[in-house]
Amino acid sequence: MLVGDEDRLRPLLPAGLDLPIHDCKGVVPMDAPRPASAVRGDPEPSVTAAMRLLREGKACAAVSCGPTGATMAAAFFVLGRLDGVDRPAISLLVPRTDGGRLVLLDLGANVDSRPQHLVQFAAMGQAFAKVLGLGEEPRIGLLSNGEEPGKGDERVREAGARLAALPLPFVGNVEPAAAFRGACEVLVCDGFVGNIMLKTVEATAEVVTTILREEVLRQASAKAGAWLLRPALRRVRERTDYASQGGALLLGVRGVVVVGHGRSDASAVHSAVRYAARCAADGLVERVAAAMGTLPTVADDDLAAPPALQ
Amino acid sequence: MLVGDEDRLRPLLPAGLDLPIHDCKGVVPMDAPRPASAVRGDPEPSVTAAMRLLREGKACAAVSCGPTGATMAAAFFVLGRLDGVDRPAISLLVPRTDGGRLVLLDLGANVDSRPQHLVQFAAMGQAFAKVLGLGEEPRIGLLSNGEEPGKGDERVREAGARLAALPLPFVGNVEPAAAFRGACEVLVCDGFVGNIMLKTVEATAEVVTTILREEVLRQASAKAGAWLLRPALRRVRERTDYASQGGALLLGVRGVVVVGHGRSDASAVHSAVRYAARCAADGLVERVAAAMGTLPTVADDDLAAPPALQ
Repeated sequence: MLVGDEDRLRPLLPAGLDLPIHDCKGVVPMDAPRPASAVRGDPEPSVTAAMRLLREGKACAAVSCGPTGATMAAAFFVLGRLDGVDRPAISLLVPRTDGGRLVLLDLGANVDSRPQHLVQFAAMGQAFAKVLGLGEEPRIGLLSNGEEPGKGDERVREAGARLAALPLPFVGNVEPAAAFRGACEVLVCDGFVGNIMLKTVEATAEVVTTILREEVLRQASAKAGAWLLRPALRRVRERTDYASQGGALLLGVRGVVVVGHGRSDASAVHSAVRYAARCAADGLVERVAAAMGTLPTVADDDLAAPPALQ
Repeated sequence: MLVGDEDRLRPLLPAGLDLPIHDCKGVVPMDAPRPASAVRGDPEPSVTAAMRLLREGKACAAVSCGPTGATMAAAFFVLGRLDGVDRPAISLLVPRTDGGRLVLLDLGANVDSRPQHLVQFAAMGQAFAKVLGLGEEPRIGLLSNGEEPGKGDERVREAGARLAALPLPFVGNVEPAAAFRGACEVLVCDGFVGNIMLKTVEATAEVVTTILREEVLRQASAKAGAWLLRPALRRVRERTDYASQGGALLLGVRGVVVVGHGRSDASAVHSAVRYAARCAADGLVERVAAAMGTLPTVADDDLAAPPALQ
């Protein structure tokens, strides 16, 4: 079902493709300065309407390529959080070099997370990894600047101590290279750090492929070089351009919500919809909720802080 | 001058190379659990002895490929900090895709930096960029998860507000890709974030070159593929394997101190020594000290926190 302005959407549908359209005139623009307020606007914005359809059981998942902050805010306010979740987290499934895959979270839903939030991300991420079939007991790693338990900033050291005390398969601090090679199936971090890590992967892949293209073309004829490199570079893009992979999942809200990149092409939107459908069919939210139910309830002043929606 | 156990060093010197050796029996092992205490050990460790030679004017710079924490601690305690510097920072010079270069700091000397520390890193980094000739007025960027002033975590937002109020060429928040493309000459961040960013660059470069090698060899004959890729991959390594570039500079202490990677080869050590010599010849420390002198003195409770030496 498409959610948006029917007058604008209908003419864009190819002949013969008769998708239902939920008409809705409101929009949160990409550059909305305060998306958390914008999602409560009148007329109701499409992202809010989509979440309402989800809450009312008229849809089983929601996909949006609009502003991430707006999607998060709409999901937060309309769907609500799972019990035991203080802050939803954005997670992404990333290929490892050993052929496995890695759930990375949080990638930017939160900044200034407290240690207890990282513990919740770990539990949610692990449940998600199980749904995805990443092993019987997907291992949890904590992104850090060194492997020793004393490494990390205050937040990471405290989160590590709490995770080690829980009945979760926690492998301790993990550095980026070890995570990509297969040290864990779930890599947990604060959203500021995770977002920078993600953007550094994308930026580095761009830098490296640019250098390689220049160097190979310097050696080979342009034609031979292009023949050799085109499929290889496409493969690198597939494996490092996470934006093209169909979207990130917002974990911790009462519904399957996939956040697509604003520059998604048709193929990325297609992947995002398939991804959302699979998560819904696999009972993702129920399984994440069950995992959160096994976490001991934490009563500490950490949780007094309101979530920061950017 | 070599600083270490003469009985072990002398036999390693090639015939005809008669370098002076400052005999010294103490060592901080690579896995010392508490390097900050180890550098005060008896017999005096070589890294501490090297800093003492620097302080006494018997050397103009120090280079160590031993444990970073020990080098930092020895520099901190023996040389002392520059006026106005609360925490020294590790900086690295990184190539940009536009042909320019970028000073990145802090890369792991500190975790849990306060906003005012980022301001000091900015001033030190800018002075360093001037010494390196990266433009008349090298621009300062603040590493963040988005360009808008409201982006970033609490530390970044506060540091951004303070930097904007100072007479420094501050361009605001900068994302990784923009920094690599040339948005600034100095990129400032907390050491935990910077260390993760650096390690993500190295890990991603490894992942991308592995994928490319596999894909190109699948298409071309092994021989043709190797012919094409070997120089290209070497160039990528040169530009992304920062460890091989000769070392990182410890900014903010009263002397030129270069921190080499523990797995440095002969060529990396050679680069590190040349780099240290050039910084000393260019009056780096004096120029950084002068830049710090122009910063307004800040009296806030930020500065009560002792530096965290890991």
